[in-house]
Amino acid sequence: NEAVITCKAAVAWEPGTALTIEDVEVDPPQAHEVRIKMLYSGVCHTDWAYLYEAGPSSLERPYPVVLGHEGAGEVESVGAEVTNVRPGDKVIPLFLPQCGECKRCYSPKTNQCRKNWCTTQMGVMADGTSRLCKKGQQVYQFMGVCTLSQYTVVADTSLAKIRSDAPLDRVCLLGCGVATGYGAALNTAQVEKGSTCAVFGLGAVGLAAVMGCRAAGASRIIAVDINPNKFTKALELGATECINPQDHKPQSIQEVLKEMTQGGVDYALECVGNATVMSDALESTIDAWGVCVVVGWTDSEPIRVDVDQLLMGRTLKGTYFGGWKGVSSVPALVDQYMKKELKLDEFITHRLSLNEVNTALQLLNTGER
Amino acid sequence: NEAVITCKAAVAWEPGTALTIEDVEVDPPQAHEVRIKMLYSGVCHTDWAYLYEAGPSSLERPYPVVLGHEGAGEVESVGAEVTNVRPGDKVIPLFLPQCGECKRCYSPKTNQCRKNWCTTQMGVMADGTSRLCKKGQQVYQFMGVCTLSQYTVVADTSLAKIRSDAPLDRVCLLGCGVATGYGAALNTAQVEKGSTCAVFGLGAVGLAAVMGCRAAGASRIIAVDINPNKFTKALELGATECINPQDHKPQSIQEVLKEMTQGGVDYALECVGNATVMSDALESTIDAWGVCVVVGWTDSEPIRVDVDQLLMGRTLKGTYFGGWKGVSSVPALVDQYMKKELKLDEFITHRLSLNEVNTALQLLNTGER
Repeated sequence: NEAVITCKAAVAWEPGTALTIEDVEVDPPQAHEVRIKMLYSGVCHTDWAYLYEAGPSSLERPYPVVLGHEGAGEVESVGAEVTNVRPGDKVIPLFLPQCGECKRCYSPKTNQCRKNWCTTQMGVMADGTSRLCKKGQQVYQFMGVCTLSQYTVVADTSLAKIRSDAPLDRVCLLGCGVATGYGAALNTAQVEKGSTCAVFGLGAVGLAAVMGCRAAGASRIIAVDINPNKFTKALELGATECINPQDHKPQSIQEVLKEMTQGGVDYALECVGNATVMSDALESTIDAWGVCVVVGWTDSEPIRVDVDQLLMGRTLKGTYFGGWKGVSSVPALVDQYMKKELKLDEFITHRLSLNEVNTALQLLNTGER
Repeated sequence: NEAVITCKAAVAWEPGTALTIEDVEVDPPQAHEVRIKMLYSGVCHTDWAYLYEAGPSSLERPYPVVLGHEGAGEVESVGAEVTNVRPGDKVIPLFLPQCGECKRCYSPKTNQCRKNWCTTQMGVMADGTSRLCKKGQQVYQFMGVCTLSQYTVVADTSLAKIRSDAPLDRVCLLGCGVATGYGAALNTAQVEKGSTCAVFGLGAVGLAAVMGCRAAGASRIIAVDINPNKFTKALELGATECINPQDHKPQSIQEVLKEMTQGGVDYALECVGNATVMSDALESTIDAWGVCVVVGWTDSEPIRVDVDQLLMGRTLKGTYFGGWKGVSSVPALVDQYMKKELKLDEFITHRLSLNEVNTALQLLNTGER
């Protein structure tokens, strides 16, 4: 299909301002590109932070941009040389590709394929231009995907083909949040059976981390949030205890967790995106073998790590998309959902139309349910 | 032997001042304690930092204290219930014990045995008192060992019995520096064959880390120091390249290393004890799977870690005594030295008497050879 499609998209014109719904033109896919009719999208804290949080990378963020990187849709058309999908296929776009041909894709140690990395980070396709525009002005595609548009174009290595009977309104969550938290526990922390875990922050990522710790067979899963409304769902997804740091002041959360666990948890997962919480999470792990995985993102300040914390045997690491190699893993995660081995329905708190996207971001940020 | 021994020791009376050689009285060993005639001791940057570097822990450091935690000697006498050594045995005191009976000693994940931890950290034995005194005033035993005394007393779980033909003037280096750096590469970083490594700081610990990377089969070992006089020895011990960050200014060392290695090293080992160098070392590793091991100690400031550095797949961890479980590993390291599989002679730059201990600390700090 060689036609330009005009459709609705939620456009961010500049940092710190609400999105506006605009008619945008979506170009046809070029070689090795796929145009997707986006049917469902989640909103993620990273979308919010990109728009509203200032940090060293702020100046490099291109505008106007269409945000959104957690969605599902159907292939509308494919460019030349695309062999992995055809029109009508159900797909989940991937902000982290899997080219399948590089050293990193062959390595079991990482999912950090760098195919088109520099261009997608700048919000454009491999040729350096975006496929979205508004009256002749280029509109950037956040992380190379931009799911908050009715149509988008992605590289053929940046999407996962999923089974045709998958409910897109739920599996779209595997495009980021649920996959990220779940994989952070399973792939990055590599939580062991019988271990003790703490999960900081009970948004979608944190709840999915709880579910991942449960799937790994952890015997204690302590869910931590300053919003106690999150606790019911955390318990439903596998938390064995829930604590609100504000109930324990002036004691620090790391002191509380160390007391609860005779020295600290084996694994801590930071799913907030706050540098202070990241330090707290590291310090709540046991010396000797504690592992803290940073799952949330922020660039507004660095994590401050006391050297002693590390020397005594702790490990600090991070995860990106939960360590999953998307092209091969996302279809498998969809299968797990279809077999009821992985939950998704429980993560859905609201269903809103594209017109209500600012409400969605607000609900995300306030944590209302 | 129930007699008090009067001998010479290098006493630190207060922070920031030179050591003085004093006659001290060394009590006989109590139950589960061993009195050792110290024959040789190294000096370590941690001794220096304890005395001269201010940090949050400064106020908790007990004085007067006898420093030194890297030595070798002979058992002079043993207390009741000591079964692992007898008078005349050659031993290396351990600042990190291996009781052999706790969960940590049974775990392959750590060497962080906590037997007598709280007391040794405060410079006293299990009963809360020191075995050293000066005219009735208690003199603390640094890390529970204090090798800069002609005699010392340690817990029977805090020493390694080594073979009788081991040359103590060289194997004493296995009490801290060489074991720490060598193990940091082998046990903590777990350097892989064919990988690329960077070692920051070419004191004894850093040189031993170079030797560890070589033993692990790394194909590139880039040694980094601002003192180019260290390079000859680094090359001798296995470094394939040496670089001086000051030759590349204003480019940062992490930029230089990334250029040299097409994206970063697989493993970085920080053997300086400087929080800024620790950040630099982390950033010099490749995203996707880079591992940075902090080997040096400081508590004068925390490490600042950008979240992005971790999310892209890097790991930051620390090592303490190189991950070795001392009682079982140190004799094995001595064996390796005797079989010429591990070098020690190359690490010796000066031989000084106890009277010259302040000169030794000064040579250590300036890096003179």
